[in-house]
Amino acid sequence: MQASFRDELFARGLLIDSGVPGLSGRGAVFEEIRSGFDALVSAAAASDQPEVMRFPPLLPRHQLESSGYLHSFPHLAGSVFAFAGDEADALEQDERAARHEDWSEHQRMTDLALVPAACYPVYPAVAARGPLAPPGVVVDAGGAWVFRHEPSHDPARLQCFHQREIVRIGTPADVLDWRDQWSQRGLALLRGLGLAAERAHAADPFFGRGGRMLAANQRQQELKFELLVPLGGAEPTAVTSFNYHQEHFAHRHQLVLADGSTAHTACRIHPPQHGMQLWIELRAGQRRCAPYDGKTRAGASHASISHQGARARQKRARPSQRKL
Amino acid sequence: MQASFRDELFARGLLIDSGVPGLSGRGAVFEEIRSGFDALVSAAAASDQPEVMRFPPLLPRHQLESSGYLHSFPHLAGSVFAFAGDEADALEQDERAARHEDWSEHQRMTDLALVPAACYPVYPAVAARGPLAPPGVVVDAGGAWVFRHEPSHDPARLQCFHQREIVRIGTPADVLDWRDQWSQRGLALLRGLGLAAERAHAADPFFGRGGRMLAANQRQQELKFELLVPLGGAEPTAVTSFNYHQEHFAHRHQLVLADGSTAHTACRIHPPQHGMQLWIELRAGQRRCAPYDGKTRAGASHASISHQGARARQKRARPSQRKL
Repeated sequence: MQASFRDELFARGLLIDSGVPGLSGRGAVFEEIRSGFDALVSAAAASDQPEVMRFPPLLPRHQLESSGYLHSFPHLAGSVFAFAGDEADALEQDERAARHEDWSEHQRMTDLALVPAACYPVYPAVAARGPLAPPGVVVDAGGAWVFRHEPSHDPARLQCFHQREIVRIGTPADVLDWRDQWSQRGLALLRGLGLAAERAHAADPFFGRGGRMLAANQRQQELKFELLVPLGGAEPTAVTSFNYHQEHFAHRHQLVLADGSTAHTACRIHPPQHGMQLWIELRAGQRRCAPYDGKTRAGASHASISHQGARARQKRARPSQRKL
Repeated sequence: MQASFRDELFARGLLIDSGVPGLSGRGAVFEEIRSGFDALVSAAAASDQPEVMRFPPLLPRHQLESSGYLHSFPHLAGSVFAFAGDEADALEQDERAARHEDWSEHQRMTDLALVPAACYPVYPAVAARGPLAPPGVVVDAGGAWVFRHEPSHDPARLQCFHQREIVRIGTPADVLDWRDQWSQRGLALLRGLGLAAERAHAADPFFGRGGRMLAANQRQQELKFELLVPLGGAEPTAVTSFNYHQEHFAHRHQLVLADGSTAHTACRIHPPQHGMQLWIELRAGQRRCAPYDGKTRAGASHASISHQGARARQKRARPSQRKL
């Protein structure tokens, strides 16, 4: 995946260039495909009867500090700063900013940070209710916006992207069982779209020298696996991941079961990282959509990743770049 | 609106407390009501045949610097910082963060900032296409997440909330005509929900002493008006605003018409600021929903703010706080 593919996405109006690597807007066709895929995931998740929670793209800084994310991924985290000062400071800040000079000295760290993965706000929200009665809970955190500080011209490495996460919290046996069920569901979902998906063990991109040990441990214990799809690049692309966290998040957020034991957690993530969503969804869209001529509404022919909501949007929506 | 109302929203599972004032998650019922209202706005906008664009909650810092926002609202803006340093710095940052001490010195300003209003990324995206042919364009920027640095225990003053914006770019006459049409549509929409909406002139909360002059000018020229609804508080609540920006954004982003003249712009915003969304949507929801007993799915009885998508979600969704 390279700059030429990214430029094609901009030219077709699927993405909207912001000028900053890894930050893009989306046109109508992208949103149709995204919501169509989202509906497939919802259908696959229905038997879990998940509880719906939605979170903003920001979380309390205190939660990020407690989560261990800054230990494992300091290079990817983002924090929110805001103005502190009087009217003279505000004037100076504005003058510098208008000249695109450095105005950072007038900004101070706030109580907020950027959500690094869609499940992060879920654990403290569930923990706040007190001990979990059997059989624990499944939470659908929807398609949340997440942040990774990783500027890149590769369109599959976004700094800010939608991530659809479903989280299971319960006993170790229940959580592992759920993860294994999802492995089968995920393969069936992708293969149903005509994609030659395979399951493989994987590890997270932990930071630094210590991170290599964490990753090796994660592989050895088979805590994380991904569903890989060959999409024309040199390597197959990870489009979904399933992470078994054991006690990691429960320990950090005091998530306990009714019998007093520490809960275990696992999650199902699409895409696992770096805006892989883009790659799979647009490639899937290209395979299934009628050629995009800039006039007709794409999407009518990709029934397998369409749904009620997307159809309603298509009726209202024009193509995103009428000129192209 | 006070802390007691906020606590009721938490207790009923409509909102999920994050611990930081003005930052909340949402439960299933809130999302149903929000998407139902959203669908009403889409229906009212259909005759505009808006072009669909969706933007992440972050925008290029360069765009924020160019927009004039830091001049008018330095106190509300947010910037994104991220780690800069080596492994030793990362270790020190993590140790401080884990103790909830100050780790801001390891963070540097990035190229990104938080979106202050949903229309901000729209202007540069449209400007990048070159001069606009008549009759200009209407862009539906959807329900974007926006940020205002304004921590408060008032549940109507959120730091991060969904804002539904529709933007008109064209000649002054076309833009004013569009704004006036929307004034009527907006009143009809709210009155159709049984709300005694009225239109009133308004001004933005500009910063500092100079800001008072800007606000007076905005009122005098009738550039902004709001739709107000009496909702039980001491003052009626602004639930929608219509802003005529004249050349402000077009001038800053080089938005020109095909005849070489500078475009004019206007937008329709729900909610205008401070999470008013919460107030109107939850009050509307409380009026129309069956009493929420924690078991049955609320929403079946609020057909007037329901729609296909919300119904589909209701089928999958459990109530957000099963214990309550």
